[in-house]
Amino acid sequence: MTVVTRVSQRTHSAISPTSVLALACPFLLLVSSPITPCFGFSGVGQEDERNRGGDLYQEILRDEAVARLHQLGKVSDGDGYLERIFMTPAAVRAGSLILEWMEDAGLRTWVDCLGNVHGRVEGTNASAEVLILGSHLDTIVDAGIFDGSLGIISVVSVLKVLSIDGKLGELKWAVESLFSGVTIQEAPKKNSIAVTEEHLQQLRYDPKSVWGYVEIHIEQGPVLEWVGFPLGVVKGIAGQTRLKVTMRGSQGHAGTVPMSMHHDPMAAAAEAIVLLESLCKHPQDFLSFDGQCKSYSLESLSTSLVCTIGEISTWPSASNVIPGQGTFTVDLRAIDDIGREAVVCELSNRLYQICDRRTVLCTIDRKHDANAVICDSELTWKLKSAAYLGLKRMTGSVQDEVPVLMSGAGHDAMALSHLNKVGMLFVRCRGGISHFPEEHVLDDDV
Amino acid sequence: MTVVTRVSQRTHSAISPTSVLALACPFLLLVSSPITPCFGFSGVGQEDERNRGGDLYQEILRDEAVARLHQLGKVSDGDGYLERIFMTPAAVRAGSLILEWMEDAGLRTWVDCLGNVHGRVEGTNASAEVLILGSHLDTIVDAGIFDGSLGIISVVSVLKVLSIDGKLGELKWAVESLFSGVTIQEAPKKNSIAVTEEHLQQLRYDPKSVWGYVEIHIEQGPVLEWVGFPLGVVKGIAGQTRLKVTMRGSQGHAGTVPMSMHHDPMAAAAEAIVLLESLCKHPQDFLSFDGQCKSYSLESLSTSLVCTIGEISTWPSASNVIPGQGTFTVDLRAIDDIGREAVVCELSNRLYQICDRRTVLCTIDRKHDANAVICDSELTWKLKSAAYLGLKRMTGSVQDEVPVLMSGAGHDAMALSHLNKVGMLFVRCRGGISHFPEEHVLDDDV
Repeated sequence: MTVVTRVSQRTHSAISPTSVLALACPFLLLVSSPITPCFGFSGVGQEDERNRGGDLYQEILRDEAVARLHQLGKVSDGDGYLERIFMTPAAVRAGSLILEWMEDAGLRTWVDCLGNVHGRVEGTNASAEVLILGSHLDTIVDAGIFDGSLGIISVVSVLKVLSIDGKLGELKWAVESLFSGVTIQEAPKKNSIAVTEEHLQQLRYDPKSVWGYVEIHIEQGPVLEWVGFPLGVVKGIAGQTRLKVTMRGSQGHAGTVPMSMHHDPMAAAAEAIVLLESLCKHPQDFLSFDGQCKSYSLESLSTSLVCTIGEISTWPSASNVIPGQGTFTVDLRAIDDIGREAVVCELSNRLYQICDRRTVLCTIDRKHDANAVICDSELTWKLKSAAYLGLKRMTGSVQDEVPVLMSGAGHDAMALSHLNKVGMLFVRCRGGISHFPEEHVLDDDV
Repeated sequence: MTVVTRVSQRTHSAISPTSVLALACPFLLLVSSPITPCFGFSGVGQEDERNRGGDLYQEILRDEAVARLHQLGKVSDGDGYLERIFMTPAAVRAGSLILEWMEDAGLRTWVDCLGNVHGRVEGTNASAEVLILGSHLDTIVDAGIFDGSLGIISVVSVLKVLSIDGKLGELKWAVESLFSGVTIQEAPKKNSIAVTEEHLQQLRYDPKSVWGYVEIHIEQGPVLEWVGFPLGVVKGIAGQTRLKVTMRGSQGHAGTVPMSMHHDPMAAAAEAIVLLESLCKHPQDFLSFDGQCKSYSLESLSTSLVCTIGEISTWPSASNVIPGQGTFTVDLRAIDDIGREAVVCELSNRLYQICDRRTVLCTIDRKHDANAVICDSELTWKLKSAAYLGLKRMTGSVQDEVPVLMSGAGHDAMALSHLNKVGMLFVRCRGGISHFPEEHVLDDDV
């Protein structure tokens, strides 16, 4: 395999440039190197192939992939911004485009009843399990072009290179690319379409038929940029709890109620948010070892716990009215489920105390819970080794180990973790910015 | 004057009931008693008049006034709630209704180019100054029926009683009722109608022609109910400052940015709001005697300062996104202008400190400022004495002095204070609730 070490000339980043193949290589290596003998296929990895493939790789794995990212980023229901939500016209158009690209890569394709786009190549061993490579094709409102799409286009491009090299038919196991508009579990909740048990039965994978699931995604965080690595391996996906906190007090005129007679839900909310921030920064100061939380939980909490107040509002929301009600959301994530539960419990108790002291009524609604997913250690190790070898070939030398990260973001891998092994690769993104039009990944990192 | 001591049977309040004339009496007494000799007119106050007037007063000053409050409360641009904003169809309809009532009370009426409704009766002394009795006929959205309207209807009812008694023509000075949709100063800002300098010239009162301005208004606060008095005299109207605080940080995915790398404007806002509450509850702990704030300011601040965060929002306002921006309003009021200024200065400094520490950008926009208005001490004393005598006649005995309050709410009196003396009476309202459909004043208090 040819290693191309073209140095990035882009001026928008001071981060050390890396090769065209930074991301594609681990995939190819995962397939071809001795560290995955059970799934290896012969041929790739030979010197003659590398020389021939150099330009091809750059052309397809970087230039065409980047062009496709921009093309897919224009498929939007929004006018002047990217919005592609489950089963909207744009989602359908995006699905057709991806089908076309998958067919171009030599895959057999189909769309299921929920709009998920599938592409498959059978292995030489017909009874072998399938490796699923996936990501999501829907976006948030006013999204960036890399979230989800990078995983889709990387996989299609890698498979296309194998196809051009004539190696696609030589894979011993089946590879299926699955690009979902929404996870199968969530679809019926989000949409009014009638999804019958029969439909779901068709959509379900038999866990015995699946070897594992691998997803590539932008990091959506700043860690890889901070450590100066183009990619990292994910050890697990944090569990999540979402709360909606509502505080009700005494609405009044801003000028006429003495401060001592305020029962102000906004002031209570502010105190609660300050408390929440302290608790999430220093859980060890709030949770006791003897209580719900064991010492190992505290240690993992201290490094992985993140909390966000994303939405807040008051009622009636007028500058000259003491609010009668204040509402905010809490998003809590941690790799340790027991620790997260302890945080939710401690937070709730302290919120009720704040409200009691202020004669404000507090309601905490638990809107969503998802347990953490720990990536398969064998698969993670393979991805890490392949990433290291790939980077070494491309850049000549790699100073440090490939970073192993926790993913605070939920991913399709979370929804598919019940099937079998799950592994993920993260690609660095500029400033850790995601879910935002300014979201950016270096062409070379692609 | 007949004193009627009908006891309220309404069950929604545990407050001691008072007479029909609780409010009307001070007005009549202000006109007729020896404490206002310069403006007195003969006849009212004689025993024979009182006996005749008893039922009439109850009928007009309570029953008709309460009926009119409910009638005016239905004149709305909103469907199922009260909304009557400057120059809307409902405001015009309300103006017509009030014109009709003023004509019924024997006043000469007209509407000026800004929709303000005027009614006037000339005094026997053609060159005497005019006493303006006013309030506002516009409302907030989803308003109560007493805010503004109580002042309008009380004045019209009192003048109607004088008219029926044949005393309206015997007033030595002119009385003009002015019911504004919006203050003259603010109108051009709020509405796109072209108001020329000529218009304004026509609308302006010559300060020399005005003796003073008196306004009746619901308290919009809980103090009168708390001390058990149906009405109180206002010593001054607090000065106001309104700020809009915008904090800008680093937007990010809720799961992927470690707590130590958050630059979260929502967390900064929460810290700022907690600080603001402390500062407003205990200004003496924050402001030094040697600085901007003198000791007398601190004393008056401690009793009069009120602060409210009425509106708050985040951008992009999604539960799983660390906000890139947080915005909130601050409403600050105090009877002491220098003290208020010192609070604004101290608050701003501390907000900038919070933002600096968090690497968040803070912008403080000063949206509105109004200096405090101190009510005329002679007029306040007269209103207080008249209120005391009125209450005494009605209830037999009055245990305490009539409360003298600070008004935290801005009133039309504030806008007209440049003309001459200003005085105000407050009527208690249930629970201190105002700017709300549940706003309520006892029929007897009316």
